Formats: sequence, structure tokens, C-alpha cells
Amino acid sequence: MNPADLGLPVDVPSTALFTDQYELTMLQAALKSGTADRRSVFEVFTRRLPEGRRYGVVAGTGRVLDAVENFRFDAGLLDFLKERKIVDEPTLRWLASYRFSGDIWGYPEGEVYFPGSPILRVEGTFAECVLLETVALSILNHDSAIAAAASRMSTAAGGRRLIEMGARRTHELAAVASARAAYIGGFNSTSDLAAGFRYAIPTVGTSAHAFTLLHDSERDAFRAQVDSLGRGTTLLVDTYDVAEAVRTAVDIAGPELGAVRIDSGDLLLVAHRVRQQLDELGATGTKIVVTSDLDEYAIASLAAAPVDAYGVGTQLVTGSGHPTCSMVYKLVARSVSADPRAPLVPVAKKSLGGKTSIGGRKWAARRLDADGVAEAEVIWVDTVPPGLADRQLLVELVKGGEVVAREPLDAVRERHIAARAGLPISAMQLSKGEPVLPTEYV
Amino acid sequence: MNPADLGLPVDVPSTALFTDQYELTMLQAALKSGTADRRSVFEVFTRRLPEGRRYGVVAGTGRVLDAVENFRFDAGLLDFLKERKIVDEPTLRWLASYRFSGDIWGYPEGEVYFPGSPILRVEGTFAECVLLETVALSILNHDSAIAAAASRMSTAAGGRRLIEMGARRTHELAAVASARAAYIGGFNSTSDLAAGFRYAIPTVGTSAHAFTLLHDSERDAFRAQVDSLGRGTTLLVDTYDVAEAVRTAVDIAGPELGAVRIDSGDLLLVAHRVRQQLDELGATGTKIVVTSDLDEYAIASLAAAPVDAYGVGTQLVTGSGHPTCSMVYKLVARSVSADPRAPLVPVAKKSLGGKTSIGGRKWAARRLDADGVAEAEVIWVDTVPPGLADRQLLVELVKGGEVVAREPLDAVRERHIAARAGLPISAMQLSKGEPVLPTEYV
Repeated sequence: MNPADLGLPVDVPSTALFTDQYELTMLQAALKSGTADRRSVFEVFTRRLPEGRRYGVVAGTGRVLDAVENFRFDAGLLDFLKERKIVDEPTLRWLASYRFSGDIWGYPEGEVYFPGSPILRVEGTFAECVLLETVALSILNHDSAIAAAASRMSTAAGGRRLIEMGARRTHELAAVASARAAYIGGFNSTSDLAAGFRYAIPTVGTSAHAFTLLHDSERDAFRAQVDSLGRGTTLLVDTYDVAEAVRTAVDIAGPELGAVRIDSGDLLLVAHRVRQQLDELGATGTKIVVTSDLDEYAIASLAAAPVDAYGVGTQLVTGSGHPTCSMVYKLVARSVSADPRAPLVPVAKKSLGGKTSIGGRKWAARRLDADGVAEAEVIWVDTVPPGLADRQLLVELVKGGEVVAREPLDAVRERHIAARAGLPISAMQLSKGEPVLPTEYV
Repeated sequence: MNPADLGLPVDVPSTALFTDQYELTMLQAALKSGTADRRSVFEVFTRRLPEGRRYGVVAGTGRVLDAVENFRFDAGLLDFLKERKIVDEPTLRWLASYRFSGDIWGYPEGEVYFPGSPILRVEGTFAECVLLETVALSILNHDSAIAAAASRMSTAAGGRRLIEMGARRTHELAAVASARAAYIGGFNSTSDLAAGFRYAIPTVGTSAHAFTLLHDSERDAFRAQVDSLGRGTTLLVDTYDVAEAVRTAVDIAGPELGAVRIDSGDLLLVAHRVRQQLDELGATGTKIVVTSDLDEYAIASLAAAPVDAYGVGTQLVTGSGHPTCSMVYKLVARSVSADPRAPLVPVAKKSLGGKTSIGGRKWAARRLDADGVAEAEVIWVDTVPPGLADRQLLVELVKGGEVVAREPLDAVRERHIAARAGLPISAMQLSKGEPVLPTEYV
């Protein structure tokens, strides 16, 4: 089954209104002043990583491509804009036929990034590019924040399995995107069925305390679960007394019991006790899954505990302290007139206050040291630095309005794991620090 | 125009997959064990407020009602569950005809809440109630977090206008829900067009630096904007030199210029300078809008500055440090058999580890002191405390599967403002503190 054939659980007929009003009013003013058709280059980048983070993770690019394809103003949306008097008639006519026809380059999804990295570059007329600002930033800022947290958790977990189970802690559709971003960052599965449906991410489930409480005894509950779901199921053992529950669980399911889940208490201590008890009962193959407000630090602190898998919710879907990135979408160059042959000139905000940017169309490459380890993010205006062409980071995503870089999510996930492995070893430290690569403007 | 007639910009044919897999596997096991039809009471509550917060804000209830109505398994979703072998055939048949037919009571949307407040109470068979856990929590945890931040910002802003402009900093659909929650919390408008479309929230827009940079000069850009959008528009004055920009702005638009926006620098200092300059130029009616990573503390620090409106993005949509709430959905009572006349028994998790809960169906009332100021959140099992019936907090939301409590968003917003005004004055302090009302179990 191809999940794309089934569409989204939430169908997305149009992404055009995921847009700040000023994008449309700027369009209107530019159409009137004759500047709307000036060729323009917009770039997405961050001025900084979240405090203490050593690298960023590009996630959401695939969703941006979906959003660009579905950015259409149908009659219902145009009626709304007209009735609310948000834009004038010429602008409504222009919007009715809107299709992005420009080019988009960017870091491939899953790559790591650093301050200044040109994560996405959108090129076309001012009018067609400016409209994409809000939705592109929504997606990249959200998804990259989740992927960065996931990547750190995946480092902390070593080779142990990570289950994304944060749906209940974030917006119901942000949850679907979070499961996708978590998978890119190294998670193995999700509890979110919509994410399984939409993105074919492996889904898993255990059981809740409610199921135990529904039954007249824990024994009844365990028997019901094993009868229905088989001995390979995961039984939740902390509703009443953990030791008693583990005994009952093995008594009912036998040593073939798949796993037990511990969701409260001192996980380090309880995991050791439960492992010992399982082993004594002969259930040496039964795995231990721990959950309960885990973050990358809690995961790391359980490295020596006999834990087989971590279920992570709240801290994952809230980006472990950094629920968004500070990516911006800035005009960096534009032509001097609406003539398509007119030359581009670099532009940049010049005011005081720290929000300046560097004009001109950027390229980027990652320079490696003699051992093949990344040592710098090199950014160049208008051309790739000589000698670094083979380490160029930007790829073509959209050409003349057509998406040219669709890829399976597993490829994105593998790219992330490889990109992270290419960083200096200090990238894996969970403690606060500086970005592990300096950004050099050449 | 009624936006509901136009539907969502993103159509929601079904919310049924915004669900953790274990809800469905628990259903399967309960169907097999004969416990699925036991009458059950689930409650949503929090064990604590986010650290230092003095009250919580219930938001998302209206969206939960939408989600319950749209919780349907159509053929596409059932095919997915079958192909992935997530549940067995009897469960698929049960899901195919799923319609929630129970009752839901809850705090009305916009109310304030405290630890232990029974924010939502869902009653029906175990099977029909357990399925709603994930999506109900997703919505309430997200929306209430945003509304709580918005409420604090609205207190900090005094009577000044607040514009929600965080769409680019969160998931594109979380942004729509955030604009809705912000409006409930006291914001006046949003930049998000989808929120205007879906919820009829007033939308506003200014201009971005890109618009100025697109033109050959700031003067050209301002003229283009005023020509197209009128003198009442808001000009962005910090692309180059602020004083020069303000001079140019008034030169072009005259003293009728609607507003100027400042998006960088020392906002307190710059706002004073710009106000003085505007006044000297005769533009005494021109307003000043400030933006740039504002939170409730930054808003409060500008109380003495000549600022007319605040635009808030990142910190609003990320809950100002608390992007989610810790609401849980717990089974608190269930019948002893599947017989509909069987009595309910209270149930609760008993294990060590701090995650215990109190069994039994709760009622809540807010006790007032002699001056009519709230002094306690009183929670009672199974009946309303005598003498507090007139201050009862729970209202009927769904009766026999039918939504009975739809209301306009403005009513919700007014309820919140009134509920907040009824709290002790210390609720308005931005500094960290304890919940302003104690929760008393009677």
C-alpha cells in the first residue's frame, strides 16, 4: 500500500491561507507599484542555534514541497479575501491563477545546519516568492526543532529503540509532523496512527493504566491483553505493585512475554529490579520499555540500566526546551527592474539592532579535515568555493515550479545519521556548548 | 459570511487517526474480554500548573467537540488498520460503526483552572470513551498552553492591543489553533489568514523588510504601500535609519499615517524617540506598533513607553516557556459489569511514583469570599458541595452523542476575561508563584 494513494487523514486542498496577511498586502502594493515581477532571491537561514545546541537538523523540506504544490487560491478562499477586503480586485485576479513557477534549492532534508547556513533558497518573481514565506517557515521552524531534539535523544539512546509517543502533548497535526521529524532524527517508531497512515512510519502501542483499572483485577487485565494481542504484547506493570505485576505477567504470558512497560517511579532502580525479577522467572527475553517524561538527559542517565526501549512524549514534541527554531526568510537579492534580463543586486537590512543579514545568493559547502571529519561550514556568495564543489550542500528541489527532489523518508533518516556521524565527536555531547562547526564566509 | 459555511481551509474529514495505537489495541482486548461495554468515566485534569504559573486557562474545548463529531473510521482508514494488522476483524467491524454516543461535561472554554480541576469528563462505554483520549488531550494540552501565555500577555499589555503573529514559528495548523487560543486569552487580532477564515478572528497585516528592499529606495517602498493600501497603513521604519524612515513616512502619508512598526533595537528607547519625532511632525495620531521577540515580561517593561500595540510571535505560540500542559485523561470510575444498570465503582492507579489519581466522578465549584473574589477551587466526588451549587463549574457539552454547547468565540473570550477578573489580584503578577487558588477536596 502506498499511503500517498490514500491521501492525508486530514486532506489538504490548499495551503494558501497558512499565510500572514502582510504577504498578500505587500503583493498588492508591489503589483500596483510595478515591482512585483522583479526577480528575487529569498533565503531561509538562522542567525543562531538554540542556546547551547551544537548543530541543527534540517527537517520539513519534504513538507514544504507539498505545501508549495498545494498553494492555490480556490473560489472559497478568494471569496473570503474579497469579503474581508483584505486585497483589491487586481490582486484577487492575480491570486486566482497563482502557481509557483520559480526555482528552489536547499539543504537536503536530514542534513545538519549551522548559523548562516542557506537552508532553503527560493527564486522567482518577488510576487510568487513572498507568498511562500509564512508556510515555509512554519514547517521548517517546527519540524527542525523536533528533529534536533530527536537527534540528541537518539545519540543518548545509543543503539536502543526510541518510540515517539508525544501526540497527546501537542497539536493533533503538529503531532503527525513531529512523528515524521522524530523518525528523521533517529527514532524507530511512533504511537501516532495518523503518522503511520500518512508517512508509513512504523507504529507501535502498549497499554494504559485505564485498561488495567477497567478489569476486576490486574490478572484479568493481563489475561485479556495476552488473549487478544498475544504473548508478544507489552504489559504495563506499574498500576499497583510492580513486583506483583511482573510475577502475574510472566505467570500469564510465560517467558515468551514480549515486554513490560514502566511508566513511573525511579526508572533506574525499578528497571534493575524488574530485569532481575524477569530473569529469575525465566523471562530472559522479555524486554523492558520505560516511559515517563523522558528527555535526552534522562535517556542518557539510563544508559547503564537494563532498558531495551524508551518511549518519549512531551520533551520530544516540545523540542526539549526549544520548541521552535529562529529561521527567517529574507530577501537577499533582486533585479533592478521587472525585465527578466535585468541584473540581480544584493540587498540587506542595515538598521541597528542585531537583525542584519548578508545580501546576495549564497552557496554552501562543508569543509573536511584530513581525517574526513567536518571542520567548517563555508558560505560563499554567488558561487561555490573553489575546491569545495564536491562538498556542496545545496541541491535542486524545485525547477520551474516542478518538484524534482521527492525522496522516501528512510533516505532522509539515513542522510541525517550519516551527516551527524561526519561531525566532530563533540557534536554528541549533550551539555551546552557552541556550534561544533564555525561558519566561514568566504 | 459565516466561515463555517466555507469549511476549514484544511478540511477535516476524520479525526479518528489522531490517536495512539494503544487506544485501538486496548479496545480490541476489551471487546474480546467482554469489558468493552462497561460504563466508564474518564476525566481530564492536571496534577500541577506549569512551574510558577498562578492559573491555567481552559482552551480547545470547542475544537474537542468538533473532533468528537468527526471521529469516524471511513473505508480508507479501516483499510490502513487492516493492512497494517493493527487490530483484528471484530474490532474493525466495531470501528466502522463508531459514533460517540455518551455524555461529556466540562469546564466551559475560557474558564480558569487549577491542579485537580476536572476540566473535561467523558462518560459512556469504555470502548467509546477510551478512543477519544489522544485527540482530546492533544487539543486541550496545546490550546490551553497558548491561551495561558496569551492571558498573561494580555494582563501585561493593560488595555493596549495585542496582535498574534506567530504563524511562522509553529506548525502551520498549530498556528491556526494558536490564533484561536490567543484570541480567547485576550488578543485582539491575528496575522494568520487561515485563522481569520476558519474562526472569523480579525486579521491584520503590516509590511516586511523585504518590501522595502524590493524597491529602489525606502521612499519608493513607502509610496508604493501608501498608494495601494492608503494612509491608514502601517509602515515598517527600521530597515535602514529609523529617524530618516519616520521623516519619509510622514512626508509621504501625511499626519494621517496609520502607524509605524519598529521590529528591532531597544524598543523602549526607539519608541520614545519615534513618538517624539511623530509628534513634532504633526503626526500625533499615528500609532506605534512594536514587535521583536516579545513576551509578557518585555510587554510589561514597555508599559511606560508610548506604544499602542504589540505584535507577538514566537513566545506566544510556544506558550512562553510552557508549550504544553500536563493534562491527563484518566479512568476514574467504571461499572462492575457490562450491564447498563450495574453500579459504578471508583478506580485509581495506586503505584508509587507520584502519578496517583483520585477515583470517582468529580464535580467542582469555585468558592468566593465575602467580597465576591474567588478563594478556593472545591472538588467533590459524585455531587456538588452543598451551598456551592450556584458556583458550579461543569457544564454539559455533549448529551447522548450530540453536541449541546456550541458557542461563538467572542463569548469564550469574554468568559475568560471575566473569570480572570474574578481571581485574587495576585493572579495578575507575572513573577513565579503558587496557584492563586488552593484546590480543596471535600
